Amino acid sequence: MPADGTIQDTSRGSLRQQVYLQLRSAIEQGTLRAGTRLPPSREHAQALGVARNTVLWALERLRVEGFVQARVGDGTYVADGVAALAVRPGGGRAALVGEAALSARGRLMADTALRWRPPAVMAAPFRIGAPEVASFPFALWDRLSRSVAPAARQGTAQYLDPQGLPALREAIAHWLLVSRGLRCSAEQVLVTSGSQQAIDLIGRLLLDVGDEVMVEDPGYSGIRACLLGHGAQVRPVPLDDEGLDIAAGAARWPGARLVVVTPTHQFPLGLRMSLARRVALIDWARRCGGWIVEDDYDGEFQYGPHRIAALASLPHAERVLYVGTFSKTLHPGLRLGFIVLPAGLAPAFAAAKALADRHCPGELQAVLARFIAEGHLLRHLRRMRELYPQRQALLIEALARASGGALRLAPREQGMHLTAEVSGRRGDVALSARAREVGVMLAPLSAYTLESPRRGWVFGYAAYHDAALRDAARRVGPLFARGSA
Amino acid sequence: MPADGTIQDTSRGSLRQQVYLQLRSAIEQGTLRAGTRLPPSREHAQALGVARNTVLWALERLRVEGFVQARVGDGTYVADGVAALAVRPGGGRAALVGEAALSARGRLMADTALRWRPPAVMAAPFRIGAPEVASFPFALWDRLSRSVAPAARQGTAQYLDPQGLPALREAIAHWLLVSRGLRCSAEQVLVTSGSQQAIDLIGRLLLDVGDEVMVEDPGYSGIRACLLGHGAQVRPVPLDDEGLDIAAGAARWPGARLVVVTPTHQFPLGLRMSLARRVALIDWARRCGGWIVEDDYDGEFQYGPHRIAALASLPHAERVLYVGTFSKTLHPGLRLGFIVLPAGLAPAFAAAKALADRHCPGELQAVLARFIAEGHLLRHLRRMRELYPQRQALLIEALARASGGALRLAPREQGMHLTAEVSGRRGDVALSARAREVGVMLAPLSAYTLESPRRGWVFGYAAYHDAALRDAARRVGPLFARGSA
Repeated sequence: MPADGTIQDTSRGSLRQQVYLQLRSAIEQGTLRAGTRLPPSREHAQALGVARNTVLWALERLRVEGFVQARVGDGTYVADGVAALAVRPGGGRAALVGEAALSARGRLMADTALRWRPPAVMAAPFRIGAPEVASFPFALWDRLSRSVAPAARQGTAQYLDPQGLPALREAIAHWLLVSRGLRCSAEQVLVTSGSQQAIDLIGRLLLDVGDEVMVEDPGYSGIRACLLGHGAQVRPVPLDDEGLDIAAGAARWPGARLVVVTPTHQFPLGLRMSLARRVALIDWARRCGGWIVEDDYDGEFQYGPHRIAALASLPHAERVLYVGTFSKTLHPGLRLGFIVLPAGLAPAFAAAKALADRHCPGELQAVLARFIAEGHLLRHLRRMRELYPQRQALLIEALARASGGALRLAPREQGMHLTAEVSGRRGDVALSARAREVGVMLAPLSAYTLESPRRGWVFGYAAYHDAALRDAARRVGPLFARGSA
Repeated sequence: MPADGTIQDTSRGSLRQQVYLQLRSAIEQGTLRAGTRLPPSREHAQALGVARNTVLWALERLRVEGFVQARVGDGTYVADGVAALAVRPGGGRAALVGEAALSARGRLMADTALRWRPPAVMAAPFRIGAPEVASFPFALWDRLSRSVAPAARQGTAQYLDPQGLPALREAIAHWLLVSRGLRCSAEQVLVTSGSQQAIDLIGRLLLDVGDEVMVEDPGYSGIRACLLGHGAQVRPVPLDDEGLDIAAGAARWPGARLVVVTPTHQFPLGLRMSLARRVALIDWARRCGGWIVEDDYDGEFQYGPHRIAALASLPHAERVLYVGTFSKTLHPGLRLGFIVLPAGLAPAFAAAKALADRHCPGELQAVLARFIAEGHLLRHLRRMRELYPQRQALLIEALARASGGALRLAPREQGMHLTAEVSGRRGDVALSARAREVGVMLAPLSAYTLESPRRGWVFGYAAYHDAALRDAARRVGPLFARGSA
């Protein structure tokens, strides 16, 4: 604004808006003090070189907002209440508003979360956790969305059942029976914003501050961070070829009443939990009133003729909370997942979901329900179950060649990543740093450990086309070549 | 399955699947005990009347899952580890899995939430909180979604910035400046799953168990429930014509460090907070290091020539957390809202959002960003700002007529509902129950009170077309007619 106080018609808003802002700013900054009489609107308009109506509009707005008061037969005055608005010397508390201002609980949560730091937005090999997105049938998805009748469309634009759209919960229940051998009713299914929210709700509802939780070591850091953020004590349980040994875990951590496992395909090692261990786990939960959280993050990606059913499908699995996600089977941007709950817990979880964020987006739920029920999920998964093993084979071959035969990953009949373990006392962080220097994201196994001495690297392959995998292998292969490390 | 154990080709799955399930079920139930030798596959197939390959497939699957073991040159045996699977007498713990199993924190949250119980799915007059959805430009929304370039579409299908899509945060920041007079940067904006999640994250990060929070009385029960669920002590502050009186509140609750207000249009009374009270509120926060949560739930619906700017737009508002939502401006099914945070708090809130559910759905964010930036939000709001006052006027007239002049609501230049207060000691619950009997949802004011003696009813009108409003008025009007109560 010109120093002489005149008003110019610029792009920064209408003239009357400018007059208003100029006056308001003068009042807020104390240039026009409480009790000051404003000039009559006619003179004011002449001084600014604008129409009188322009000034009248601005004055009326200031009156409505309480900045000025009209005194009948007298004039317009700056209101008394605004005195406190003027800038005061030393009023710089703004700069102090930072994380020190958080509550104790908030600090714990923020510190934990900031230490977790989920990977940057960049999706480059060999980042894990991402599925193939280029093949996702977006056009089909859009068509399903458009083909919904207007009344139904409006129906999903309302506040909805916090537990999830009934049609989607039914589609999920039916899908789980067919694909994961898990028999449950739609009343046991809670639709969540991905598996992250599933874990978050479990932490809120089943844990108190200080409660002990057993986790696989190594294991997924996003879950650990969430549990820590809720004030839980996270207790590591080591893994052998049969997966997590609950007997060993319970002996060391007798106070723990919750355990999080990935029995179908352990993250990140890729182990499958043996039946004996599954049975022992269920037995433990029954004996001590514990909870088992089954994170079946990539259970749909089993490429052999026999797909192992979910742990939750075993008899007496009433204390298993089965967590599923569409982030891997479809895509992470969808933010849809679910929990299969013991029936008695479903009302409490639905209530907590309502407190947390009411419910998941209506239309996404409705389209996903149709996507599953009409067989598109199955078709998409069939394509991915053909594609991913090919990429895995290509990765193994490309890494072996680029490393001069030093890095030979063992093929696996499931999953979206492979893990290369390194023996002895070699660290894994330095090589990951060198990989990053050559533009490759290669997570060190140690990033997923608590006490475990296991070291190595995790290669995500599902999301990357052949050329990208070959290129990344060419870059990191030499780092593994004999004598290079 | 027939009692003789034969297998029939039914719709319940393929033959081999049935053989597998039959054997698995027999093992799980202890009919086939650990160590039992299974009949040779050829005889087994003959007995069932199926091909031998069918039995071999089932046995191989059971072997992979660990239910049976093959002994070389001998045969197939039920595995040892399965003994614990058999049903045991008295093993009925399943029935006990209920809400008693929740943690103390979980019980508090569930109890609170279950007492809140957001309204049923049915959307009928005069339910509050819902906008007009029939006029929402779904086709335009779909077109924006489809017109995104494939690469960008794939980009929003990834794991994304927990704080929200940068394009959306920028669009929101610009929108707030123009529409709500609020100057903020995109770095201060956190995209949330509606205002409910905004409050939830504030509760997690700024409150510890037992902390006192001041709320308007009467006020919105969804926010109170969320705060109570986090263990906060919710402290009522009464309202007069100028809105919440922070001096009175602070005198009575000197320990409170957070206050939640609806200064633009108090919910549910419809008051506008005076400038003097706004200034006093900001002063209180600065003096004692308190936080002000400004819930601007329907701030866009001001129908007069002058729209009041947000409280957060005043000077020294650094301790104001401004909560906005698209549930009213667009529709609740979208589940998108936001907080404008003091810049120093943004990283902690983004981290907590990542722990809670990673981020909001990518595509919804991308489409909303374009919807705002290309002027569609403004156009939609202009239409709604013409429509809603018409509906309000119709409601007032229809209620006056149907009640024989007994119920005359005062018109308001803003909002999506009107409140009718009743004086004296009359209750409001009985009439609401009678309204429900005639098919009308009429929330009693007492449902929103803590200590306040105010009684009356809240009439939501924004979401209902003329005929629906007239019809509902005809039904409830007689309940208000003189002599009827």
